[in-house]
Amino acid sequence: MSDFQKTKSMFHLPDGMIYLDGNSLGPLPKALPDRVGSMLTKEWGDMLITGWNKADWMGQPSRIGDRIGKLIGAPAGSVVMGDTLSIKVYQAVASALELNPNRKVVLSDNGNFPTDLYMVEGLLKSLDKGQELRLANPADVEATLSEDIAVLMLTEVDYRTGCKHDMKALTQKAHALGIVVIWDLAHSAGALEVDLAGCNADFAVGCTYKYLNGGPGAPAFIYVAPKHQDNIRPALSGWMGHESPFAFDLNYKSGAGIERMRVGTPPVIALTALEASLDIWDMVNMADVRAKSIELCDLFIAEVEKRCPTLTLASPRDGVNRGSQISFKFDHAYAAMQALIDNGVIGDFRAPDSMRFGFTPLYIDEADVIGAAVILERVINDKLWDNPTYQTRSRVT
Amino acid sequence: MSDFQKTKSMFHLPDGMIYLDGNSLGPLPKALPDRVGSMLTKEWGDMLITGWNKADWMGQPSRIGDRIGKLIGAPAGSVVMGDTLSIKVYQAVASALELNPNRKVVLSDNGNFPTDLYMVEGLLKSLDKGQELRLANPADVEATLSEDIAVLMLTEVDYRTGCKHDMKALTQKAHALGIVVIWDLAHSAGALEVDLAGCNADFAVGCTYKYLNGGPGAPAFIYVAPKHQDNIRPALSGWMGHESPFAFDLNYKSGAGIERMRVGTPPVIALTALEASLDIWDMVNMADVRAKSIELCDLFIAEVEKRCPTLTLASPRDGVNRGSQISFKFDHAYAAMQALIDNGVIGDFRAPDSMRFGFTPLYIDEADVIGAAVILERVINDKLWDNPTYQTRSRVT
Repeated sequence: MSDFQKTKSMFHLPDGMIYLDGNSLGPLPKALPDRVGSMLTKEWGDMLITGWNKADWMGQPSRIGDRIGKLIGAPAGSVVMGDTLSIKVYQAVASALELNPNRKVVLSDNGNFPTDLYMVEGLLKSLDKGQELRLANPADVEATLSEDIAVLMLTEVDYRTGCKHDMKALTQKAHALGIVVIWDLAHSAGALEVDLAGCNADFAVGCTYKYLNGGPGAPAFIYVAPKHQDNIRPALSGWMGHESPFAFDLNYKSGAGIERMRVGTPPVIALTALEASLDIWDMVNMADVRAKSIELCDLFIAEVEKRCPTLTLASPRDGVNRGSQISFKFDHAYAAMQALIDNGVIGDFRAPDSMRFGFTPLYIDEADVIGAAVILERVINDKLWDNPTYQTRSRVT
Repeated sequence: MSDFQKTKSMFHLPDGMIYLDGNSLGPLPKALPDRVGSMLTKEWGDMLITGWNKADWMGQPSRIGDRIGKLIGAPAGSVVMGDTLSIKVYQAVASALELNPNRKVVLSDNGNFPTDLYMVEGLLKSLDKGQELRLANPADVEATLSEDIAVLMLTEVDYRTGCKHDMKALTQKAHALGIVVIWDLAHSAGALEVDLAGCNADFAVGCTYKYLNGGPGAPAFIYVAPKHQDNIRPALSGWMGHESPFAFDLNYKSGAGIERMRVGTPPVIALTALEASLDIWDMVNMADVRAKSIELCDLFIAEVEKRCPTLTLASPRDGVNRGSQISFKFDHAYAAMQALIDNGVIGDFRAPDSMRFGFTPLYIDEADVIGAAVILERVINDKLWDNPTYQTRSRVT
């Protein structure tokens, strides 16, 4: 068995379904329910409060952070888990702004995932210091960098198109202009090689329910470059980030290093699930994952363009400029995606007119790619989408 | 079987252990692992991304919020789940301050749990508008209320002593002075009768891993009085609080009512665990729980004072002035608690010199109370605490 055949065998993949939505929610690792069950009964059940020590629940956020660090080029002690990606964005931007107190602009792009923008909008309204969130088109970010910008906050891979920023070049250019840089790795961690240390990124954040398969609503992570860790003031100064949480001081004193980015009590059950899912990553290396992901995406483009000439590729054609997903535009994309789902191919719709498909070598292979293209051909060319129920079906994700 | 014999039978309680620390981490409901396992395999595993709709994961935060609302006197649509208590404190205080923009003081007491104070400290530093966190002694809060105070933020039950504020009277007095009032129910929800609507509270927050038995790091809740819900601006304006999260607007528009206090993607696994634990609350009513809790606490005081005259009661003697816990002071409290734990009685130590014991009628009965007092008598009177290993043993909680 190849490494990827082995990893595929470790996921629960429902019969008759080709799952191309791992970029939204990764599938269940088969070993995960037993691991969670064991934590519930043997740790919580039998150890009760002593589990914080005996099972080292207290160490989970840093221990798991270090494992994720290995997947994103971050040294030990620079990543910690907790909360949601939205909260981690807030922490990063609040701290980054204080590193650049004389500037008033946060620059992002209009391809960033909306919650990142919303969190900044809310933060700047609270601060009420005349700061501004400025949005460029993704392709214009580099040209828009200037010395009035305090913070550049980008998601490396555009959630709609899969278009990938050049993290290293943009970080370097931004630093030359005195800008602090935050990268959102939601569509990068587990999808492609990330080298936070090599790129000299200041902050990074990400979620773990997509390519890292931690389960719905799995905890987020935050990276802070070691050089900044002891200089930043946590805006969300919770007791778990205190230098001595169990001294019950009345005043906050931030803990050393990355620990100060912890906020409240860690979500032990969710972190246990995530920890189980990370075992699969020990079986592969990210360079192989990336190479295979590009192959699979290239194959999907070729198969779909051959079979469905009415669809328009909305993702970069060259794999090095993409994340691990492919989007096609189609006038009836919403209805077509519903028809696809009913025919066993799970992707998702992104407004206004994109069908989005994620490709993750850990559990997607060439047969899946071709199978999905064949079904897509039938949906498009036989107009299976032209069904009134598909126009009106409600959606959440 | 009485109702409480029935509820006791629904918890996993390790043999040979008397667990008096449910005020820190409640025990495992026996039905919970299967419920979580079923969610993992039948929902996440088989439904994958469609679980957000098909299993109504998206509705969990409000659905569970409504169930908790019933335990704290909050109407449907006024409580929502998510994040941690620290984050919920931040949201409540940030919004409360904006309801009272011309005042500069947040008043709390020095018996409040430190993370509440830390979160306010961090918020006020970020806002940098000359606002101040003022701390009174718990007994002096009422006398300290004045018209320069914007927000009164208190934990109803003191985590060290169990001493209980008069929520209704303090809220009324604060309102008469134009103060917005936030109650932290960490040691109240599931411990005693709370009537948020009847008290006219403006905001309330709480955790679910203590008396609500949701598991280590279980999600928190926030209550916003219906009259405020559509007037507050969420400081943590995440996509799940947007009026239309899947429109992917570039600008934040807050959702209707309590929904705007949602931030990031809900922690589905943790919420599923919590939901399972709440079933037990359907078997009892809070008035019975409260009456029995006072009985158990009274019995413990009587038994300990009879057996251990060197200990000093640190909790109110009159049950109506207490939460559901009893603390005793002792010069060697830390070592004595270690000895107690080694002898099968789990309580906890709170600096500088308190032994703290929680009593929860759902799974603690008279035999447990007397059994614990007998062991405590041996630890104190036979000086089992006088053992060097107990002085130095490391601790987390």
